[in-house]
Amino acid sequence: MSRTIEPFHAIAISRRAHELKAQGRSIIHMEFGQPSTGAPAAAIAAAHRVLDHDPMGYWESQPLKERIARYYAEHHQCAVDPERIFLTNGASPALVLALTTLFEPGARIAIARPGYVAYRNVTRGLYMEPVEIDCGADTHFQLTAAALEALDPAPDGVILSSPANPTGSVIPQAEMEAILRLCAERAITVISDEIYHGLSYVGPLQSALRHSDNAFIVNSFSKYYSMAGWRLGWLIVPEGYAATTRALMGNLFLTPPSLAQHAGLVAFDCAEELEGHVETYRANRALMLDALPALGLDRIAPPDGAFYIYADIRHLTDDSLAFCAQLLEDTGVATAPGIDFDPVNGRGFMRFSFAVSTAEVQEAITRMTPWFAARR
Amino acid sequence: MSRTIEPFHAIAISRRAHELKAQGRSIIHMEFGQPSTGAPAAAIAAAHRVLDHDPMGYWESQPLKERIARYYAEHHQCAVDPERIFLTNGASPALVLALTTLFEPGARIAIARPGYVAYRNVTRGLYMEPVEIDCGADTHFQLTAAALEALDPAPDGVILSSPANPTGSVIPQAEMEAILRLCAERAITVISDEIYHGLSYVGPLQSALRHSDNAFIVNSFSKYYSMAGWRLGWLIVPEGYAATTRALMGNLFLTPPSLAQHAGLVAFDCAEELEGHVETYRANRALMLDALPALGLDRIAPPDGAFYIYADIRHLTDDSLAFCAQLLEDTGVATAPGIDFDPVNGRGFMRFSFAVSTAEVQEAITRMTPWFAARR
Repeated sequence: MSRTIEPFHAIAISRRAHELKAQGRSIIHMEFGQPSTGAPAAAIAAAHRVLDHDPMGYWESQPLKERIARYYAEHHQCAVDPERIFLTNGASPALVLALTTLFEPGARIAIARPGYVAYRNVTRGLYMEPVEIDCGADTHFQLTAAALEALDPAPDGVILSSPANPTGSVIPQAEMEAILRLCAERAITVISDEIYHGLSYVGPLQSALRHSDNAFIVNSFSKYYSMAGWRLGWLIVPEGYAATTRALMGNLFLTPPSLAQHAGLVAFDCAEELEGHVETYRANRALMLDALPALGLDRIAPPDGAFYIYADIRHLTDDSLAFCAQLLEDTGVATAPGIDFDPVNGRGFMRFSFAVSTAEVQEAITRMTPWFAARR
Repeated sequence: MSRTIEPFHAIAISRRAHELKAQGRSIIHMEFGQPSTGAPAAAIAAAHRVLDHDPMGYWESQPLKERIARYYAEHHQCAVDPERIFLTNGASPALVLALTTLFEPGARIAIARPGYVAYRNVTRGLYMEPVEIDCGADTHFQLTAAALEALDPAPDGVILSSPANPTGSVIPQAEMEAILRLCAERAITVISDEIYHGLSYVGPLQSALRHSDNAFIVNSFSKYYSMAGWRLGWLIVPEGYAATTRALMGNLFLTPPSLAQHAGLVAFDCAEELEGHVETYRANRALMLDALPALGLDRIAPPDGAFYIYADIRHLTDDSLAFCAQLLEDTGVATAPGIDFDPVNGRGFMRFSFAVSTAEVQEAITRMTPWFAARR
């Protein structure tokens, strides 16, 4: 068995950005998919209180599991037994937990290309086989029922991501339901990564859970809740898998961070502050969409959700890593090369994260406009 | 491929203990291996400051890696490049990271029985094969070079644990060096779980790193540093493995909790407070060793380190889970059944954790004395 796990190239960009910053350069961090804001104020206040009064041993928060269940009842009209909800050390470990619960080595897992690099690498890291489906602009770089149906033999599982990283594109509701129907018919297990739920510019999104009791749902406090460094996520499993998942969680990870669980419970009731972040992203997105054509970037994935723009730069380069590195050196704007998300076509794409302040987006556009103009 | 992942039975005991507490019963928690104390005061103060000033994105603390390297230089006379040190979401994920870095499915990993349940279950969870070596009182329930040498074929790897869970026993230094020599000769990769280092009642312990640049070292802030719920540990890998480990860490786990990394850095300089905890454990251990013969528990593993007593109760029961459950119901003292650590012989053993206050140990002894007396 052989296995190639690629590094995140954006990390190299980010390291260089920090070096430049240490040299006194002004840097705008659009390379990572993380909010520049912190946790909600009330969540931080709760963390202060817990720090002073709780020795914080190994712990799983039953109130948080119940609160998550209530979220699904209220926002997705789904009844979820809290016993099916597992608190994890972030969405990445939730994906590891889902895959190890479900599949043996050699299992074939369908994923979209472009897609989040960890889908490919975690699958490979566990000696499973990622089955990459080349998704182009015609399907907003997203999986479709037709593309899944064309796989022969059928894969054992599929990872859905809507809104997606790196594109922000959303699988249309009718297509999502067609995918879930097909997966039920062909016994393809669905892992639905819903980490960007809450960050939609095309109206409310439905959880796959609403249409399938058999789907595994991954989510996290890192994006909408603005708590990336707290390392807290969750995994929902079908009832019949709960015992296996519980045993694997305890052995592979033990428990998620105690303080994050206390803060996360409070974060659920900070809608006003969190929706304020969404309004910022909405404004940033509008600024970017307004400015991109002038940069010559007029072929982009529809940024329906999340906080990304995935832009076609094939007319400018066939080496997106070098291109992003040069952009950083010249302007201080850090971005992610497409090769992190698409090893085949990604050398002609780049990703901007606009989860920064609106002033930073404006400044980034000001700096990038002459830089891109010089390359047309 | 089939796979059985057993639950932690101590969790069932603990749940029942919490139910009884909610009913107003007085409970003494000796079932889990976690300090009842919290993080050092200075670490908590640092966390308060970070909470107020840092939005806490995904982050790896270079200063903490350098501080850990300094610890090995000062305490173990080992030079470790910080690039070989990986900060993890606790020791359990560090073990997952080590195993996925090193081995393919089917790899044979030698472990001591009794031993920490996750050694067996993580190995199985990743479709590797735990090779359990039955370790009895004659070797303080620890692996020996002779026992490893007797394995034919040689295993691919071995997990060493000294001080060990559930026994607290230490592999004598000469034996440890013999094991490391044998492993070098037979190309058996060593994973040395040193999570209980710092908690020794038989003098300072040497890291396996001092005798082998090829060993993988697992450690954590959960025990000596009294920060179990913060979920922070580390893994040291040989230089040639660093790139693979880095790629797997980023994909499987992304980063460890930011706040814990800030607090962990400060915790390294809280020796006075942390040594105070060790003195408490030392006093608790002395109380337990004094009281156990009167309970009829005169066959125990030498509690050289950690905060455990592993006692032979075969003269009292052949069902340690029922025995521990009854002890809890009758006295409010929660303990762990031996079956968590030894599926073959564990029905005749139990584990006490004395990482509680000295007053609680005294109270536990007072309650257990008549209970055990009634069973002799």
